[in-house]
Amino acid sequence: MKTGFYIGRFQPLHNGHMSAIKNALKEVDKLIIGIGSPEKCYTRDNPFTAGERVEMITSALEGEGISTDRYLIIHIRDIEKYGMWVSHVEILCPKFEIVYTGSPITKMLFEKNKGYEVREVSKDIDVSATKVREELLNEREWEELVPESVSGYLKKIDAVKRIKDVEAKD
Amino acid sequence: MKTGFYIGRFQPLHNGHMSAIKNALKEVDKLIIGIGSPEKCYTRDNPFTAGERVEMITSALEGEGISTDRYLIIHIRDIEKYGMWVSHVEILCPKFEIVYTGSPITKMLFEKNKGYEVREVSKDIDVSATKVREELLNEREWEELVPESVSGYLKKIDAVKRIKDVEAKD
Amino acid sequence: MKTGFYIGRFQPLHNGHMSAIKNALKEVDKLIIGIGSPEKCYTRDNPFTAGERVEMITSALEGEGISTDRYLIIHIRDIEKYGMWVSHVEILCPKFEIVYTGSPITKMLFEKNKGYEVREVSKDIDVSATKVREELLNEREWEELVPESVSGYLKKIDAVKRIKDVEAKD
Amino acid sequence: MKTGFYIGRFQPLHNGHMSAIKNALKEVDKLIIGIGSPEKCYTRDNPFTAGERVEMITSALEGEGISTDRYLIIHIRDIEKYGMWVSHVEILCPKFEIVYTGSPITKMLFEKNKGYEVREVSKDIDVSATKVREELLNEREWEELVPESVSGYLKKIDAVKRIKDVEAKD
Amino acid sequence: MKTGFYIGRFQPLHNGHMSAIKNALKEVDKLIIGIGSPEKCYTRDNPFTAGERVEMITSALEGEGISTDRYLIIHIRDIEKYGMWVSHVEILCPKFEIVYTGSPITKMLFEKNKGYEVREVSKDIDVSATKVREELLNEREWEELVPESVSGYLKKIDAVKRIKDVEAKD
Amino acid sequence: MKTGFYIGRFQPLHNGHMSAIKNALKEVDKLIIGIGSPEKCYTRDNPFTAGERVEMITSALEGEGISTDRYLIIHIRDIEKYGMWVSHVEILCPKFEIVYTGSPITKMLFEKNKGYEVREVSKDIDVSATKVREELLNEREWEELVPESVSGYLKKIDAVKRIKDVEAKD
Repeated sequence: MKTGFYIGRFQPLHNGHMSAIKNALKEVDKLIIGIGSPEKCYTRDNPFTAGERVEMITSALEGEGISTDRYLIIHIRDIEKYGMWVSHVEILCPKFEIVYTGSPITKMLFEKNKGYEVREVSKDIDVSATKVREELLNEREWEELVPESVSGYLKKIDAVKRIKDVEAKD
Repeated sequence: MKTGFYIGRFQPLHNGHMSAIKNALKEVDKLIIGIGSPEKCYTRDNPFTAGERVEMITSALEGEGISTDRYLIIHIRDIEKYGMWVSHVEILCPKFEIVYTGSPITKMLFEKNKGYEVREVSKDIDVSATKVREELLNEREWEELVPESVSGYLKKIDAVKRIKDVEAKD
Repeated sequence: MKTGFYIGRFQPLHNGHMSAIKNALKEVDKLIIGIGSPEKCYTRDNPFTAGERVEMITSALEGEGISTDRYLIIHIRDIEKYGMWVSHVEILCPKFEIVYTGSPITKMLFEKNKGYEVREVSKDIDVSATKVREELLNEREWEELVPESVSGYLKKIDAVKRIKDVEAKD
Repeated sequence: MKTGFYIGRFQPLHNGHMSAIKNALKEVDKLIIGIGSPEKCYTRDNPFTAGERVEMITSALEGEGISTDRYLIIHIRDIEKYGMWVSHVEILCPKFEIVYTGSPITKMLFEKNKGYEVREVSKDIDVSATKVREELLNEREWEELVPESVSGYLKKIDAVKRIKDVEAKD
Repeated sequence: MKTGFYIGRFQPLHNGHMSAIKNALKEVDKLIIGIGSPEKCYTRDNPFTAGERVEMITSALEGEGISTDRYLIIHIRDIEKYGMWVSHVEILCPKFEIVYTGSPITKMLFEKNKGYEVREVSKDIDVSATKVREELLNEREWEELVPESVSGYLKKIDAVKRIKDVEAKD
Repeated sequence: MKTGFYIGRFQPLHNGHMSAIKNALKEVDKLIIGIGSPEKCYTRDNPFTAGERVEMITSALEGEGISTDRYLIIHIRDIEKYGMWVSHVEILCPKFEIVYTGSPITKMLFEKNKGYEVREVSKDIDVSATKVREELLNEREWEELVPESVSGYLKKIDAVKRIKDVEAKD
């Protein structure tokens, strides 16, 4: 059985994340979906709690018909010491062999430390969470940037108000 | 849909944990299984990594025929400020309504802070992880104290040696 | 008896803070004055120690003839997890019912978590601590922006030199 | 004007603390009352929050007819590096000259670092907070060990239940 | 015997550092070379590990014919509380009397806290580590900005790739 | 060139440490001497500052005629996450190949993570720092347990008083 690792902050989960997850799931039996910065919330860069992000991921994957036994969500708390990051991830996650990342330094650290196989994240869609938050803030066309179930969830928790509140903070 | 919350350190997962989880799953649709002290490992009280504990939980629940869509594993990092613990759990987890606990102070904090429904953990089996670790250390009858899949896993990672190593530490 | 809560960093205390405190004291019997970022000092944004800020507050309130039994100064250490901030404040402070704030996210968190009454900070004077620090740095007309006793205190500790030193730092 | 510094954890405030405070106030104009371990609460050694301890101190001193302009309560957060403790206290507190302590190491650190005058804490009454917590746990004669206003406060917040809950905790 | 203290981050060690160290060694018998931010690495501002920086310092000083008994390398971990910084340095280092610094606030803190002799860092060469990192990133003339042994070391660890990787990060 | 790594807390440095260091230096060209818990001091288990411990090591090795180019002292700050400890040490130290340790778990972590060569610490003398501190506390025969230069240093800083002060603390 092959297991992959893919990390994001999912602030919020968007179509680019979904594309990356679906592409990875074509290659591995199980995907560990790491939630980065899980303890950060109610700030401009991290408006949503980890719990809310878990709800977005599970509903979006359910919306795509992906079974819960294909993935595992793991909170990966920030540590400030980047040189220890691989050890940190190894402690928190079940064993995995393949790392999906678009970051050269993550690639370098995983390859240097342990001999993991590192693969480029494959996204068919070009969208960033920063872009989604900007569109939410300005009440523009954000809905098409995220999966339908996430769009519904964001409306339910009144994400537009959240984004405006944290923007105005201080 | 009703969601429950149950937390343990699972050092290692034993039959008491399994009994509690199975009983809770009779009452709720989905159970959030919190892993306490996820960053602690290779110590006397916390010999196993969070990743190893995730593997124990998923294999034990699979062994019991429990579907992956009935539960969610969430790392709940230790915070030293017990008065903020309820907020901490709320940030990390999807929404839940029912808390399963045997601790009077956890009961008090959840009831006082938020009006959750707190239910006594219902275990049919009386065993503690401390007891399991002692039996492992002394190479006695530890296998009957844990689910079969966990017993297999602990042998695979040579848990007896691990327990002895961390016992001897410094 | 009604108790209010008002927080600032007081770097330094200026006429806007004084106005907010005096207006709040018209509505409550006792005001908890939280000092934010109490452990930060000797930096550009936080040039003064918490101890110095306590001295500014007590002398300014004494200068206004406000009795020491009308207020209580409490250090509110920064925590990086904004979602736990209400719990954090509750642990550190005596009970209070009314929160004075100008921040939408603080308003949201207090209302969401607990049902506090949140009131808009009422300032008759528009001045910011950033502005005061700039005027100090450039040795311009800073004195009129702060209460007379604070002006005397800032001269006594040679605040102009302090501001210049921390500006030049590194 | 002479200012003194006296620190305690006040878990809970008892007659020994009161005696020390009253004796110190005979010698100084103003006493800074440091609350140690302010962020700890709901544990066996630290059952009460800092906010509750502030309420105990203010009500006990009011009960003794001590004016609020004779003292200042300051939270002194724990730092684990004892060699930096004097600097830590200096940052958090207004200037003081006299330190009241019964601890040889505190005495040594204050004298070594800065030339403060260190005086032995003078207590007419021999009681410890540990003793009070034991008596509360066993529902014995705890009331006579604390000031009357504290006794009333502890009943109001149901301290006996609190002590029992935290004792039973895990 | 006179001992001096000089701190830098050495990201990487350049000719300005070397000049400062050599000038200080004309005035003191022994120089404590503090490595700032030792736990930071693989980031844009701190690309090299503390271990790598130790190797740069020892090889550069050896290249200059400076004996190992003239200096001592000490990791000075960052603390965020600048007001406690002098105590922090004192705990980590053997006794010293003279501080070499170009920072007004460091000068102020050392003079205020303890009566150290503070001397201006004397550099004959004007170069910054920021400049060296920029030149590395752009594969321009960086070699002449650092001692020859450091240039060799940076090539050996492929510093150009490192700088590019951390630049591209995230 | 072969480099070794050996870590201790040196509270205080005793003949057992010296024996281990001298034996290791027979096998490697350079020895990295890690100082554990460098930020702890003025407590019962860690009475001496890291700076004082550096002074003990350098004077003891000088007393043995060991050149300063045979060893390197590195502060290894405690991290609570034992599973990341190998990465932590690697970041702080120059490259090394051989680890000297008497701890089974340290042995396991170094072997598991990286393929280091781990050798048993070889001590000809059986003494512990705990024993030395006890003898100091009771003013018994502690001098023969430590190198002569350390004995002189401990007298100079009045270690007996230090040990008594921290023992009495709180």
